[in-house]
Amino acid sequence: MTNPDSLKALMAAYQERVDAALTQRLPVATIHPTRLHEAMRYAVFNGGKRIRPILAYATAKAVGCHLDRADGVACAVELIHAYSLVHDDLPAMDNDDLRRGKATCHRAFDEATAILTGDALQTLAFYVLSHDKNFDAPAKTRIKMIELLAAASGSRGMAGGQAIDLESVGQQLDIAQLEDMHIHKTGALIRASVMLGALCQSELDSVIFRKLTHYAEHIGLAFQIRDDILDIEASTEALGKTQGSDKAKNKPTYPALLGLKGAKEHAQDLHQEALACLEHLDSNADPLRWISGYIVDRGY
Amino acid sequence: MTNPDSLKALMAAYQERVDAALTQRLPVATIHPTRLHEAMRYAVFNGGKRIRPILAYATAKAVGCHLDRADGVACAVELIHAYSLVHDDLPAMDNDDLRRGKATCHRAFDEATAILTGDALQTLAFYVLSHDKNFDAPAKTRIKMIELLAAASGSRGMAGGQAIDLESVGQQLDIAQLEDMHIHKTGALIRASVMLGALCQSELDSVIFRKLTHYAEHIGLAFQIRDDILDIEASTEALGKTQGSDKAKNKPTYPALLGLKGAKEHAQDLHQEALACLEHLDSNADPLRWISGYIVDRGY
Repeated sequence: MTNPDSLKALMAAYQERVDAALTQRLPVATIHPTRLHEAMRYAVFNGGKRIRPILAYATAKAVGCHLDRADGVACAVELIHAYSLVHDDLPAMDNDDLRRGKATCHRAFDEATAILTGDALQTLAFYVLSHDKNFDAPAKTRIKMIELLAAASGSRGMAGGQAIDLESVGQQLDIAQLEDMHIHKTGALIRASVMLGALCQSELDSVIFRKLTHYAEHIGLAFQIRDDILDIEASTEALGKTQGSDKAKNKPTYPALLGLKGAKEHAQDLHQEALACLEHLDSNADPLRWISGYIVDRGY
Repeated sequence: MTNPDSLKALMAAYQERVDAALTQRLPVATIHPTRLHEAMRYAVFNGGKRIRPILAYATAKAVGCHLDRADGVACAVELIHAYSLVHDDLPAMDNDDLRRGKATCHRAFDEATAILTGDALQTLAFYVLSHDKNFDAPAKTRIKMIELLAAASGSRGMAGGQAIDLESVGQQLDIAQLEDMHIHKTGALIRASVMLGALCQSELDSVIFRKLTHYAEHIGLAFQIRDDILDIEASTEALGKTQGSDKAKNKPTYPALLGLKGAKEHAQDLHQEALACLEHLDSNADPLRWISGYIVDRGY
């Protein structure tokens, strides 16, 4: 079912599309305050895979919506993701010097600028959803999108997941606790990316909306399991960060709890469940099927 | 015209009102992740003067709107303010140990928790505006509020002002540059507090909306000038932070540029201009008049 060439072309097209949309929506670096605006662009154009915007676009396509309508949500989810990376890398958090082979924001600029950069990227995500003139969604749908994105990003979503992660370093977590952490830390925003993509089609059937949400929950967990596996298996060069860094930081991981083979099997099971959630959708949902396959097979 | 007793009672009533509204909207500290939720409440219930919610309520009253409708916006502006204080106090920013006589968030908890607390408080502000069930504004008005609040908080508003402030330490600013910094750093959110309060009345005349916006611009600057004067004149005890700390940090201030007498006169002029913006409004706007007077006379 997976088509690696089609997926590769599609991901490249969606990456290009969201990069163009982000370029339009980020303040240019010549606008005052220039250093902050430069840092915001540095943090966003960092060679990221753009998984969240790709999911938003692929979901919009799956529900028969023109991609023009999904540019705003694709930007918003990536801005939230970019802000979280800038703050997670700070010395008081994960203290990372490298992100995808490049200096992290606080290394390239300074710590104060990195804090403000993350803050302003978060704000921009909500500004884009509220303001975007290219995006003709009804006001009610926009409100729903903002509500979903805020719920996914805040203390009971992504930021809460990072708090749980910090508390978990050096702790013995069981599988339920590990899953709870990841459902918050990475799962919530991946889920929101799919939900916001689906909401680009305002007339969407609620059963399909729910199935797409479940699809997102499965691939969100699979994504994190694959990350843990890659931290063990992939080279530092491919990852753009230090290989084995989770283990060195004594972070709980799926392979540590399930074994490497068990973790791979769990990811495959989640992939199959994700596919099952799409069974009533036509070939417009193929990109979502391919992305699920990519998530459990990717090499970086 | 000013009535100190009425103002005192009114401010106390509005403070109580917004504290009750915030209590309802902040996740309780027993909800997982508990440490983050505890820190969020600590940062919000910090003895602050609640100037921004008070302005939102007073503006809602001035335009003939029931205060129930303004609870959401009052909470949202205070949540943004609270997040900015938590991040501004961080070691990489102003490195303050005390805020209104209490340990700053990163001292009471830890730096990582303080970063996440600020992040999650910002998100909650947008969640409240999008979600609040008690608030019956039409979706279009809510969108406008979210757009205004995001514009006021982001890189071209409050966060941008903090970036300009960081760049200005040890620099010789002229009065135009100092004003530019404060228009962003504190002015933008004060302006938004009034604009959001005014939008609680969806049918508001656009001329009155513009006059209220100008009122807010004048009192926003006056507020900052008074802050600078207090940093010189007030005792450390009354301020809850180290007296003279701006001077010690070599921060540019109005008294440094205009002299103490000149700064006081400038604040009084702004107060008179603020009052002039309200001249076509009836006695329901008296609280806004009193607040303007309070801002230029307050002792802490």
